[in-house]
Amino acid sequence: MPYVHPAVLEFEKMVSDKEAYRRQLEEWVKYSWRWARNDKYKLVFRVQASALRAMREFLDSKGFVEVLSPIVGPVTDPGIRGAKQATIDFYGAEYKVMSSAILYKQYMAASLGKIYFVSPNIRLEPNDSIYTGRHLVEFYQLDLEMYKASYVDAMDLAEELVAYTVKYIKDVHGKELEEKLGRQLPEFKRPFKRYSHREAIEYVNKLGCKNPPREELMWECEKIMSSYHDSPFFVYDYPRGARGFYDREDPERPGILRDFDMLYPEGFGEAISGAEREFEPAKLVARIREMGEDPMKYSWFLQMAKELYPLQTAGFGIGVERLTRYLCGLRAVWEARPYPKVAGIVGGP
Amino acid sequence: MPYVHPAVLEFEKMVSDKEAYRRQLEEWVKYSWRWARNDKYKLVFRVQASALRAMREFLDSKGFVEVLSPIVGPVTDPGIRGAKQATIDFYGAEYKVMSSAILYKQYMAASLGKIYFVSPNIRLEPNDSIYTGRHLVEFYQLDLEMYKASYVDAMDLAEELVAYTVKYIKDVHGKELEEKLGRQLPEFKRPFKRYSHREAIEYVNKLGCKNPPREELMWECEKIMSSYHDSPFFVYDYPRGARGFYDREDPERPGILRDFDMLYPEGFGEAISGAEREFEPAKLVARIREMGEDPMKYSWFLQMAKELYPLQTAGFGIGVERLTRYLCGLRAVWEARPYPKVAGIVGGP
Repeated sequence: MPYVHPAVLEFEKMVSDKEAYRRQLEEWVKYSWRWARNDKYKLVFRVQASALRAMREFLDSKGFVEVLSPIVGPVTDPGIRGAKQATIDFYGAEYKVMSSAILYKQYMAASLGKIYFVSPNIRLEPNDSIYTGRHLVEFYQLDLEMYKASYVDAMDLAEELVAYTVKYIKDVHGKELEEKLGRQLPEFKRPFKRYSHREAIEYVNKLGCKNPPREELMWECEKIMSSYHDSPFFVYDYPRGARGFYDREDPERPGILRDFDMLYPEGFGEAISGAEREFEPAKLVARIREMGEDPMKYSWFLQMAKELYPLQTAGFGIGVERLTRYLCGLRAVWEARPYPKVAGIVGGP
Repeated sequence: MPYVHPAVLEFEKMVSDKEAYRRQLEEWVKYSWRWARNDKYKLVFRVQASALRAMREFLDSKGFVEVLSPIVGPVTDPGIRGAKQATIDFYGAEYKVMSSAILYKQYMAASLGKIYFVSPNIRLEPNDSIYTGRHLVEFYQLDLEMYKASYVDAMDLAEELVAYTVKYIKDVHGKELEEKLGRQLPEFKRPFKRYSHREAIEYVNKLGCKNPPREELMWECEKIMSSYHDSPFFVYDYPRGARGFYDREDPERPGILRDFDMLYPEGFGEAISGAEREFEPAKLVARIREMGEDPMKYSWFLQMAKELYPLQTAGFGIGVERLTRYLCGLRAVWEARPYPKVAGIVGGP
């Protein structure tokens, strides 16, 4: 039986009147210090802090080292379809505010073996993204990377990390979450189900959601698939073309990338995105060009890939506000930031 | 007897040939993935991670909640003399990348009582700052704020926090630090000495360092004073005019601010900067004007100050890279960042 969390349904109702929703969101953003003092949101921010603590505890116990991520740089992850990067003038050069520090993670994985960032990201999303409930212009992700690891290792770790964190939050805040937010956190069954991208397309097609076979899952199809699960699940092996140049193409299966997403159950959608990284310098250049980008912009990265060859790593990123939304059963990610910034709305703190 | 750490002396020798130093720094920044893999720097980054863990453990045990800080905003701390702010185009409005999130800390202290950020900061420092050894364009600070607290409470907490962290690092990494970096961490005597700004000026004058009486301590005078101490120490009660508009003027002693710095011993200089915050809306407007700034730019902040009156808080920020420099006995802060960004040097990762 499909099940969609009431908060997700409530959000859908909110956005059905676009004008009213936008006015409400403008107020929300402009006077955020008001609602940030409500008991409900005090709990949300304490749960967010606990989730960060749980993830750090878990990763530290596995030998990971926390690294302070870059904030700006000459390049940032270009694989953010639809969103623009924020640029600054850095002593006469155009630098970007990180939209995702993937290329920089690999660098430190080569030094320390297993690392993570809690990294600040800015993505200037298109104006319509305010109606999705899952896009913020400003957000944090816990971003990790492992040297000499495969995407299967990364999936195994992601599963353990999410199960540990949800259990931790249930133990520490479960009673309060039920009383104040009506949120009953589930007990997860492990292992989480794993669908290849092809299997996922078949799955949603059977449920009546038509998804182009060589593209990422559409949000609508994701939500339907998510509502048929009571634990998170994986979709892996995306077709080349659907993802960033740094997701490694399988040498045995051309056209298929060694990457994955993890989705939350109950209609909450994407939790995690991860991959093994492409490390063949010539392939990197070709795939950067394929995206319509200039390899010169990535010169430090390409030189590093040559010098540290084979710079073989795998990792993933988990959005902290989306995790908080899931844990607290919130309507939208803008309820999980004390200073929410959403597309096209200016004038808040 | 004065004592300056050998790494500080080594740095002074390095910068005595400005041309050669600049060339060396350009190489350092451009190929940072090379030295980041040396055993020495692997240890530095592990110590940095441990210092963050120690500070979080300490603060969590005192009831503080970690909050994810803003990354950009309509305003950021304007009290960064000499440095420029990095600006982005945020849907047609000019937003700044945080150079310090002080105003935003107060907001969450009003919600949760005691909070901290590990906050990303960008300050476009003047080109000459590469010769100080203590300025990065991109850095992180642990930034905390307490509701209904005084600057004496903040000094007491700062003292405990630093003593705890240094002890923790000595316990966990002491042997390695001695073997690999020749760094012998001291045992601190508490309480740390506290000098009013006036006493500090007298102190350095006696040592032959002439400091204008109503200005902040000059770096040279700080270093001399620091070399006469074997534990960190405080300088408090700065004269109005020397600091940001948000440092509270003492109502009983006009012209004197209820604020402080903590300095490291051994010539390492500033560790912490903190204050009680001004909360009288009229005073805030007057002091923003005094700085030559337009109060309109701070409208959300001024409105919040009125609505939450009296928004009485105190707190401080501790630079993570400067702390790492001190803990590891490094020559300069650019040894404490895996992707160092310094003034005027473009082209690294």
